[in-house]
Amino acid sequence: MKIEVFFNPATLAPNELAGRTVAVVDLLRASTTIAVALAAGAKEILPAVSTEEALRIAQNLERDQVVLAGERKSVRIEGFALGNSPSEFTPETVGGKTVVLTTSNGTPALLAAQGAKEVVVAAAVNFTAVVERLRLSLEATGDLAILCSGHDRQFALEDAFAAGRLAKVLLPEGGLRHVEVNDGALAALEIARHFGEHWLRALRASRHGQELATLGFSNDLRTCATQDSHPVVPLYADRRITAHRPAPEG
Amino acid sequence: MKIEVFFNPATLAPNELAGRTVAVVDLLRASTTIAVALAAGAKEILPAVSTEEALRIAQNLERDQVVLAGERKSVRIEGFALGNSPSEFTPETVGGKTVVLTTSNGTPALLAAQGAKEVVVAAAVNFTAVVERLRLSLEATGDLAILCSGHDRQFALEDAFAAGRLAKVLLPEGGLRHVEVNDGALAALEIARHFGEHWLRALRASRHGQELATLGFSNDLRTCATQDSHPVVPLYADRRITAHRPAPEG
Repeated sequence: MKIEVFFNPATLAPNELAGRTVAVVDLLRASTTIAVALAAGAKEILPAVSTEEALRIAQNLERDQVVLAGERKSVRIEGFALGNSPSEFTPETVGGKTVVLTTSNGTPALLAAQGAKEVVVAAAVNFTAVVERLRLSLEATGDLAILCSGHDRQFALEDAFAAGRLAKVLLPEGGLRHVEVNDGALAALEIARHFGEHWLRALRASRHGQELATLGFSNDLRTCATQDSHPVVPLYADRRITAHRPAPEG
Repeated sequence: MKIEVFFNPATLAPNELAGRTVAVVDLLRASTTIAVALAAGAKEILPAVSTEEALRIAQNLERDQVVLAGERKSVRIEGFALGNSPSEFTPETVGGKTVVLTTSNGTPALLAAQGAKEVVVAAAVNFTAVVERLRLSLEATGDLAILCSGHDRQFALEDAFAAGRLAKVLLPEGGLRHVEVNDGALAALEIARHFGEHWLRALRASRHGQELATLGFSNDLRTCATQDSHPVVPLYADRRITAHRPAPEG
């Protein structure tokens, strides 16, 4: 079994993720926002690399079916209906709609994961649901890559923490002796050990968390730290993110 | 006071290091090799980005004054006198000579640090000497950036550990409350806490360390893990690395 953690989409080797199961993490805030939006009944989320691409995608859709959302430097893009605060994504704002989303860190990570076999968007709010999905994939393929979005192209503590928590609960019995890990996974596990189950402590310790708090987004930190509040599994494929619907049992 | 750790030269923002004091770490093995070579009496070390550049630099120097050294995929470059094993750098091989050195990870990190005010090459073998030098710089400027070379463009555990050890001993009294750190520094400190003072344990846990052991370089791991065996402070400026000679006291 192999579990790898990558802290930065910018330094991935070409085809590093090709054919693999990938969990993409952008805890503050795109991963959380995506899970919250799908849980609120959004039909799908289309990630866009730029404001211009978001507008172009939206123009090709029915006007009353699409919601433009996204941030630059943490603040809502001018003219867009929504920013990147999870609390903005409610049944009223996004229910039944296509959300076109562009964010500084999360979107590049998703795009870097294109070519993977399966891409799951992981956060605290959907932690256990995502873990269950990833466990099935791991059992089937024996391989998992966790891709952190980072912050401003740099290592982000909160994403490393989330990656470490995922890796920790997905380690087979017997732990590290029975799994091939990269240095990123070892470091992420160490960070997860340090913060334990305290999502909010990790978020508040991170530079990005502190920046968001300074900008008035302290509530977002609490939302992003609430484990299993939105138990949905967002799957990214063909440039769209949809909620995974498990096949009915029996 | 500000202490930042960067895990990857490839993702540095332009001018991120401009005007700053920078410690460059490539524990396996360029940092170690550079310290060992200077301690063995090498006159200077000229880093080159490629085999071709190394040859070009060497051609402009007196043939009996220059030694070509370097590796690709950990193995000595064909036709070069030396590889990148610290043990190859002795008074006999490099004493009084200019060493032209090209390595996979360390050289890019050094070049990324160009434009810094002062660049110190840090390893375990010169740990305390480097710490003393960096402490003086920190007292003068209140600012330090530690740049890890990484391995194959990825996060390298051994460099993060070394960065964490540097950050730990350089933290002011009162610790993190009195210093601005980035997420990289927080993670590096956590990794340093985990391995304590066990350089060799960290090297052996790292993927790069395991690769080197497999290739027959286990002795290099021990050399690279021997703290303070070569107490020299390599300074990089104007594309050359020389041993810092402290001004005579009094």
